[in-house]
Amino acid sequence: MSGETETEMRKCTILSSMIDNRYRAEIPEIVDLVASSCSDRNCFDHLDAAVIPSREAMIEIIDLLRDVLFPGYFGDQTVDRSVLPYHIGNEITILFEKLSKQISNSIIHDCDRYEENCTECLEQGQEETIIFLKKIPEIRSLLASDIIAAYEGDPAAKSHDEIIFSYPGIFAMTVYRSAHELHKQGISIIPRIMTEHAHSVVGIDIHPGARIGKGFFIDHGTGVVIGETCEIGDNVRVYQGVTLGSLSFPKDETGQIIRGQKRHPTIEDDVIIYSNATILGGDTTIGARSVIGGNVWLTKSVPPDTKVIIAEPDLIFKEKH
Amino acid sequence: MSGETETEMRKCTILSSMIDNRYRAEIPEIVDLVASSCSDRNCFDHLDAAVIPSREAMIEIIDLLRDVLFPGYFGDQTVDRSVLPYHIGNEITILFEKLSKQISNSIIHDCDRYEENCTECLEQGQEETIIFLKKIPEIRSLLASDIIAAYEGDPAAKSHDEIIFSYPGIFAMTVYRSAHELHKQGISIIPRIMTEHAHSVVGIDIHPGARIGKGFFIDHGTGVVIGETCEIGDNVRVYQGVTLGSLSFPKDETGQIIRGQKRHPTIEDDVIIYSNATILGGDTTIGARSVIGGNVWLTKSVPPDTKVIIAEPDLIFKEKH
Amino acid sequence: MSGETETEMRKCTILSSMIDNRYRAEIPEIVDLVASSCSDRNCFDHLDAAVIPSREAMIEIIDLLRDVLFPGYFGDQTVDRSVLPYHIGNEITILFEKLSKQISNSIIHDCDRYEENCTECLEQGQEETIIFLKKIPEIRSLLASDIIAAYEGDPAAKSHDEIIFSYPGIFAMTVYRSAHELHKQGISIIPRIMTEHAHSVVGIDIHPGARIGKGFFIDHGTGVVIGETCEIGDNVRVYQGVTLGSLSFPKDETGQIIRGQKRHPTIEDDVIIYSNATILGGDTTIGARSVIGGNVWLTKSVPPDTKVIIAEPDLIFKEKH
Repeated sequence: MSGETETEMRKCTILSSMIDNRYRAEIPEIVDLVASSCSDRNCFDHLDAAVIPSREAMIEIIDLLRDVLFPGYFGDQTVDRSVLPYHIGNEITILFEKLSKQISNSIIHDCDRYEENCTECLEQGQEETIIFLKKIPEIRSLLASDIIAAYEGDPAAKSHDEIIFSYPGIFAMTVYRSAHELHKQGISIIPRIMTEHAHSVVGIDIHPGARIGKGFFIDHGTGVVIGETCEIGDNVRVYQGVTLGSLSFPKDETGQIIRGQKRHPTIEDDVIIYSNATILGGDTTIGARSVIGGNVWLTKSVPPDTKVIIAEPDLIFKEKH
Repeated sequence: MSGETETEMRKCTILSSMIDNRYRAEIPEIVDLVASSCSDRNCFDHLDAAVIPSREAMIEIIDLLRDVLFPGYFGDQTVDRSVLPYHIGNEITILFEKLSKQISNSIIHDCDRYEENCTECLEQGQEETIIFLKKIPEIRSLLASDIIAAYEGDPAAKSHDEIIFSYPGIFAMTVYRSAHELHKQGISIIPRIMTEHAHSVVGIDIHPGARIGKGFFIDHGTGVVIGETCEIGDNVRVYQGVTLGSLSFPKDETGQIIRGQKRHPTIEDDVIIYSNATILGGDTTIGARSVIGGNVWLTKSVPPDTKVIIAEPDLIFKEKH
Repeated sequence: MSGETETEMRKCTILSSMIDNRYRAEIPEIVDLVASSCSDRNCFDHLDAAVIPSREAMIEIIDLLRDVLFPGYFGDQTVDRSVLPYHIGNEITILFEKLSKQISNSIIHDCDRYEENCTECLEQGQEETIIFLKKIPEIRSLLASDIIAAYEGDPAAKSHDEIIFSYPGIFAMTVYRSAHELHKQGISIIPRIMTEHAHSVVGIDIHPGARIGKGFFIDHGTGVVIGETCEIGDNVRVYQGVTLGSLSFPKDETGQIIRGQKRHPTIEDDVIIYSNATILGGDTTIGARSVIGGNVWLTKSVPPDTKVIIAEPDLIFKEKH
């Protein structure tokens, strides 16, 4: 090994560490800039806040919930009927711990962003968790009706198992139906974190405030938007890209938008809405058993037993040049 | 430190543990409720089942497959050409273990939900895995044609590398082309779990049963739906939101929908379908070299060499009030 | 325990291991097939490359960046204002290490796929990282304007906190605004990996090259596509499924598509574009304060202060049979 190479290597190392030091030396100034700039309307911060509702914790909770709602489907071990109570018992206990912490955090977050040890908030968090956990059989029964609707509504479905294992609409409904119950209990932030997680996973955006009857089937689902004040009856079927949204919304005298009004449509029982149809407005009602065709854009009510299809567009057939 | 504060703190702890016990005491009743309610049509369970096809395992398998299909792109270490056989050897061995387990599970799941030690099922799982692994060069060659099509079809593409590293359509096709081969072998559940994983990651929903020729390019891709019985030729290009779906499907005398018929369109070679176009029906054929414009809604066949564009809508231009 | 069962079990084990060996024996042949087939246009490989830009590392960097941009919202611990400089200091230091490594890798990847120890590349990577980190206050200020726009534009938004914790549009903009700065610095591959990660998480596809003013709000967002050469003014609002895309693009004499031209529209200040509207072409300009209705398909410019809505389709109301 020649001395030259060794010298070169040493030169290289020295050079490299010089570079390193040169740029690294700028870090304190940047830290100062970044930390000090966070003091006005140009920065939203959540400093000194006692609690952080945790998206990661909510995802864990959703996974646990799913395992309780569909026993034996999603765990990493098989579950025998004989040990089911122990299995469920273990999971409900963990759910209680984790969910009551998040609900308490959400209550503390609302009640006063800065008080960490509000005993009442902790108590209320546990109480709300118990109320929620008692609703599991009811949520499960609604989800069973959704699975049956999927099997009856999709010729590509090979089995109920396949639907539970893989259908995005069932995942969205599992999360929505759970989040909706928490929303009804008046818990803030957490229900939306839950449904936005489902939105992120399957591309289906259902606001936790929407009201949806039994036997709801969303096929494919990407791009579906169901707004906060929607009211949907039983046995409704909806395809990808369907929007149930709001028309432009009124503002008060000061120019602030008015929140909390019914802004989204009412869909009665047994309606089918095909892909990319858009139905808007709080006064818009789609009557029972009606069928809304693909790409339809509706801002007016439709009576029951009606088919609404878009007029055939003037397709222009011409030889390509 | 005053004695008062200490007393207060103790009071608080006692209070807090009392609350805790009060709500915690309700857990057994809830467990009983949740476990016992799982015994009718209101609950889908997978209890006493010997096997659980695992989504997590399939995601690991997809990652391994991607590394074998595109050597050196996705691992956490660089791969030299000289050690490639060892690298591939290692990955194929792991793939064989993991994939044959999942395929066997899927076969056992189908053959009889309750028999864990079906030797024939295990054997068949390994045989099907070997058959699949031998198809890797063919799958790789098809994917290479897809990457070339992406580079030729997208002015924003800076390099083949950028396409492989980041394009969602290539990820969807990697998963679909692998799942499709398993689907052709008659493996159930697993292919759909694979494509629904891709659907979740990139918003592109391709049923593993669809047949797609070489050089297929999906740009942007969110919202694309390609149904189970689609037949797509070579060098077809498709943009975001395109649906190749089914019209309403026939039911038998008992009111059950009929499964397994061709319900989705045929797209011939060299066709381009722009964003949010919808083409429906098993008898609908788009002739070779045709171009389907954005937002077009088609339920009828189109001859070769045709441009189909939606008639210009009557846009209403008016001064805003 | 009868001897018979034992014998049977042994038989079973022997049989099972025979099967195992039979299929396992085929692995070397498959490895050979897979490794040797990777030597032509049928296989894209990244072998012998010194560096691999890492999607996983970029995701970690995005999470760190988000915590620096919104202090106290996303960490797993609460942050007091008094310790903010230490918190930020720690995160900026880690960001410098991780990001400069990725940027250097990207520069090495471009400069010469095979030279690992290019000192200049390492130096340039660190320099570019310092330049980027100094822009954090500016990025944060733009994001604050986006959050305010979301609160003012969405009646369902309950608080700024809810928007930061859960709105997909804010996540997309956080990633885009960071990636755009790296893109402006001429860093390749990494910005696109970043925005494709956001695309995957929230279904919103913004090319890092697009230029977007302050106060930009994307509601719901799934399916939104904003192309590379878009120019968007201040206070623009956009809903799910909106495409700002290109018309068919010109090719040069050799049939290669021409890259780098303005192919995407210009949107002036205070424009609103409703769901699933599509606006195409590099010469298309939407004038200030205009409103583009849902499902509109536009390839022509629109003057300022204009409302463009699709003509009401001839809906066909008929009794269902």
